[in-house]
Amino acid sequence: MIIEKAKSYGFCFGVKRAVEIAEESQNAVTLGPLIHNPLEIERLAKNYNVKYVETIEDIDENVKRVIVRTHGIPKDKLQNLKEKNVEIIDATCPFVKKPQEIVEEMSKQGYDIVIFGDKNHPEIQGVMSYSVHNRVYVVLDPKELEGIRLKEHIATVAQTTRKINDYLKITNYLIQNYKEVRVFNTICNATFENQDAVRELAKKADIMIIIGGKNSSNTKQLYNIAKEFCEAYLVESEEELKKEWFEGKKHCGISAGASTPEWLVEKIISRIKELA
Amino acid sequence: MIIEKAKSYGFCFGVKRAVEIAEESQNAVTLGPLIHNPLEIERLAKNYNVKYVETIEDIDENVKRVIVRTHGIPKDKLQNLKEKNVEIIDATCPFVKKPQEIVEEMSKQGYDIVIFGDKNHPEIQGVMSYSVHNRVYVVLDPKELEGIRLKEHIATVAQTTRKINDYLKITNYLIQNYKEVRVFNTICNATFENQDAVRELAKKADIMIIIGGKNSSNTKQLYNIAKEFCEAYLVESEEELKKEWFEGKKHCGISAGASTPEWLVEKIISRIKELA
Ligand code: F3S
Ligand code: F3S
Repeated sequence: MIIEKAKSYGFCFGVKRAVEIAEESQNAVTLGPLIHNPLEIERLAKNYNVKYVETIEDIDENVKRVIVRTHGIPKDKLQNLKEKNVEIIDATCPFVKKPQEIVEEMSKQGYDIVIFGDKNHPEIQGVMSYSVHNRVYVVLDPKELEGIRLKEHIATVAQTTRKINDYLKITNYLIQNYKEVRVFNTICNATFENQDAVRELAKKADIMIIIGGKNSSNTKQLYNIAKEFCEAYLVESEEELKKEWFEGKKHCGISAGASTPEWLVEKIISRIKELA
Repeated sequence: MIIEKAKSYGFCFGVKRAVEIAEESQNAVTLGPLIHNPLEIERLAKNYNVKYVETIEDIDENVKRVIVRTHGIPKDKLQNLKEKNVEIIDATCPFVKKPQEIVEEMSKQGYDIVIFGDKNHPEIQGVMSYSVHNRVYVVLDPKELEGIRLKEHIATVAQTTRKINDYLKITNYLIQNYKEVRVFNTICNATFENQDAVRELAKKADIMIIIGGKNSSNTKQLYNIAKEFCEAYLVESEEELKKEWFEGKKHCGISAGASTPEWLVEKIISRIKELA
């Protein structure tokens, strides 16, 4: 039985980058968990003494280095951090930095700012804070804009993990009602790359193993796509693998959710080799 | 029987303005007919000695004044006209000047230009010519863009008489495939104002008279809307009016196509008063 990994799976580019940065900057704290995976958090703490704190206030005196995670950090919080004279290591994902820079530049040019996203999400709280004025509207649905009259010149960005068709509902509403709408497509297609890759592989394979948290929505989405095409199982660790799954199978496809580290994928693959 | 005019009918703002300009600048020629209405063309020629020529080459020596009509004129043609040392009277509609200026400014800033419109229409030939570079794509359907790879920064304008929903198909395609799409909504709602107004009036009236050319598409559209709600007739002149149409009617609504002059509307109303 051959075992094939999907073309794109597991950590996205930004998370991979942040984990590498954490591994190179030992004895540091991250502001908020670097990734939603307890095993990975434990590994970083044990092997690199990189722990996390929830807020800036939790950083005690003996901490010398603080890592800003992929979501980025609001401008004022960055300022407080600078005043704490710790070394700041910025692992903000470049695809998150982009909307931050756009909002800063467009607000300086006098555009009203519409952000398509969830105002409670850390990424959006960061992006919002880069505006130099307060005409910033964070919305998930065009209806939220109906009661407001914006200026005739509007710039828009989107939360990186949103869907393009939902973004277009916002931009369509704005284009119909305002003279100039400067649309920046800041949606990151990493999440969709994993989905396209699992679909492509599931069409060829006769069994698919999806590795990730049972309650992680992006992992469940991969699993739902895979089982449309062939027998598929969602596992959190190698203990859950069963020998009979692989009997008579010729082609086993592997994918993993956005918070599943590479070492766990390798562990599962070696276990499958023993079983098959 | 009361006679009521629709809130908005007949000449749009730009044509009204151009006709007034023509009436104030006697002994002039217009480049192309100022309006698609033979009676009106005849009136301007007879009362103001304002005639039209098809092309610049047709302008003979004794012409001292040339009027640029609502559609505007390509930049290079304007240049040839300047070399002919005639007085140039610019009656380009301000809503057509806007996309000209936007295309000029955006092309200077290095944006690729996408124009939603018909490349054979004089308005579009004018707007296109204001780009300082040749990365200009005039399309009516997103499919025409599929074979091409544009730059990541695109500015878009629309022909003034197009429909917003068709424009959104173009902008949606661009937003999905490019980083920045700077959308300018240059659609003029004059055509739709006449339609909304005829609908509103037809709901109250028990007979509607629509004045305009039998082969004018915008006039036929008004007529089609009106007859959804009550008895309606499309007439080109007062001779076509019939007495029996008005028998027992209490409320007669009036509308007119975009090329129907006000004096013709008044003539028709006085005739109706005689008949009713
Ligand atoms: S963190 Fe990952 S999902 Fe995209 S925005 Fe950065 S690559
Ligand atoms: S000519 Fe008329 S239709 Fe609009 S663009 Fe100008 S008012």
